[in-house]
Amino acid sequence: MSKEQLAKVDAMLRRPRPENPPTVEQLRAGFKALMDTMIVPDDIHTARTTLGDRPALHITPDSTSDSTPAGTSAGTSAGTPDNGTRPGTILYFHGGGFVFGSPETALSLTAHLVSKTGLDSYSVDYRLAPEHPFPAGLDDNLSAYRALLDSGLAPSAIAFAGDSAGGGYAVTTALAARDAGLPLPAAIVAFSPGLDATRTGESMTAKEGIDPIFTREAVLHTGAMYLAGQDPEQPLLSPALFADLTGFPPLLIQAGANELLLDDSTRLAARARDAGVDVVLDITADAPHVFQSYAGGTLDEADRALDRAALFLSQHVPAP
Amino acid sequence: MSKEQLAKVDAMLRRPRPENPPTVEQLRAGFKALMDTMIVPDDIHTARTTLGDRPALHITPDSTSDSTPAGTSAGTSAGTPDNGTRPGTILYFHGGGFVFGSPETALSLTAHLVSKTGLDSYSVDYRLAPEHPFPAGLDDNLSAYRALLDSGLAPSAIAFAGDSAGGGYAVTTALAARDAGLPLPAAIVAFSPGLDATRTGESMTAKEGIDPIFTREAVLHTGAMYLAGQDPEQPLLSPALFADLTGFPPLLIQAGANELLLDDSTRLAARARDAGVDVVLDITADAPHVFQSYAGGTLDEADRALDRAALFLSQHVPAP
Repeated sequence: MSKEQLAKVDAMLRRPRPENPPTVEQLRAGFKALMDTMIVPDDIHTARTTLGDRPALHITPDSTSDSTPAGTSAGTSAGTPDNGTRPGTILYFHGGGFVFGSPETALSLTAHLVSKTGLDSYSVDYRLAPEHPFPAGLDDNLSAYRALLDSGLAPSAIAFAGDSAGGGYAVTTALAARDAGLPLPAAIVAFSPGLDATRTGESMTAKEGIDPIFTREAVLHTGAMYLAGQDPEQPLLSPALFADLTGFPPLLIQAGANELLLDDSTRLAARARDAGVDVVLDITADAPHVFQSYAGGTLDEADRALDRAALFLSQHVPAP
Repeated sequence: MSKEQLAKVDAMLRRPRPENPPTVEQLRAGFKALMDTMIVPDDIHTARTTLGDRPALHITPDSTSDSTPAGTSAGTSAGTPDNGTRPGTILYFHGGGFVFGSPETALSLTAHLVSKTGLDSYSVDYRLAPEHPFPAGLDDNLSAYRALLDSGLAPSAIAFAGDSAGGGYAVTTALAARDAGLPLPAAIVAFSPGLDATRTGESMTAKEGIDPIFTREAVLHTGAMYLAGQDPEQPLLSPALFADLTGFPPLLIQAGANELLLDDSTRLAARARDAGVDVVLDITADAPHVFQSYAGGTLDEADRALDRAALFLSQHVPAP
């Protein structure tokens, strides 16, 4: 059943590629059209707001629905940390190769996390390349985190989460926060994170043709817009290779085994283990990049992965 | 708070070592005394039974008072469809270096899984070395699995779980089942598994002095009793190095970062990823071998890890 779902998703994503690299406008429109097809749970509310210097989407659980956080049904006693009574918040960073995407394109992912945890979330509309290369988006995300702290939320009540480029930001925003003298958040969840601008992972070649979404060429194409000629060999661009993760909070990394970016995840996990960080490396076989987007019935693996992520979040930030 | 708990557990385990290697009787008595101090949740029932050729402990959650032993066919049919209404079962393999331990010494772990999932469990009292070296215990565990299948339970309703040597058995019993032409279980959960009788993991030297329980010498001492001169370079003794895991069910591996045996886990996880298996590698920093034994309030990390294991089990075998 589920292997059929995975094959269906793979086939859906394996579309003919244009001869020439798409324009930035085509990339943005194509990604929006794809992500518009994802299922958004109906037990959440969204509202436009601002956070720091940028617009953000505030996603809140439907208070009337009696949503029980995943994994708490059968006697999970230790799931609620002693962080006071104010419920935690997920600071979410959307995906899109640092070039496309928005809080709306990631809404399925963010909303499922909100629905499954009962936590609320702020999804940051950070600036995009090529108009705004590194570190513009990172500055925006750090500013959003600072705004949450300034609002009186304890760092122990904030989790970072993100997918793809945004999974990278979930890690690099924490690094930037530490560099800025800010406390670290309580947990980090990264779905198929992009963590290596040097593109030296073994999977970058081993998974070519297996990855139904990316080619090495396409990854380099958008990656170059974000780099804008800057040196990729730095922690904030390639944390899987260069970041000092000492003191980092518990980290959950989920990826599909069919990804060019798989080894961004495996290498960060190894690096985190060596740095004394709690780290869960959660790999789903035969699954593509950010397969969790197919939650809501299309792909059982997606819902199960998000349930595991929701439990992880609930274990480290105060549940409502 | 929790870092204090971890330090306390570490100090508790760092006891003076005898000058001479302990006798087998001393090992067994010492381990039993240690494990007798672990907390067993009170919402479970235990009953002695037999499974295959060996005694077993049947652990049932409080809610299911009408538990039917899986050695009998009462009330069930072999034709139960996959993931049908009959709840799943955890086939549990206790730890103890293949030399000591029993279903009773692992009762805290097994009972917490039962309590948190609502599933029942059979914990196998397999034969121990040095009286019964490899593959005696493995034969017993395979025979126990065969008995569960013969009782009419679908393989899709059975998960294997175990700790330490028993975590090794959770993997090798599945390998032996496949070799015997039996179907594989629905999921495998291994806590700090022993998966490498060649003892070539980097952690075997890197974690010496950091591991509060094991020395390399002590591991080799009990390991030799199980090997009894046999070649360690075989899949059923060193699956982290030699097993073909193709077709394996979803696998959750949890370990502490302070273990000599850490790389038994990391290498099996990498091997499983390469073989196309869903695999979650879940490492807790600063934690010792089978730290989950300290669940029930002593160590928050233990309860949280078991909650994650319980969710994983519930995702792959039918919940009650």
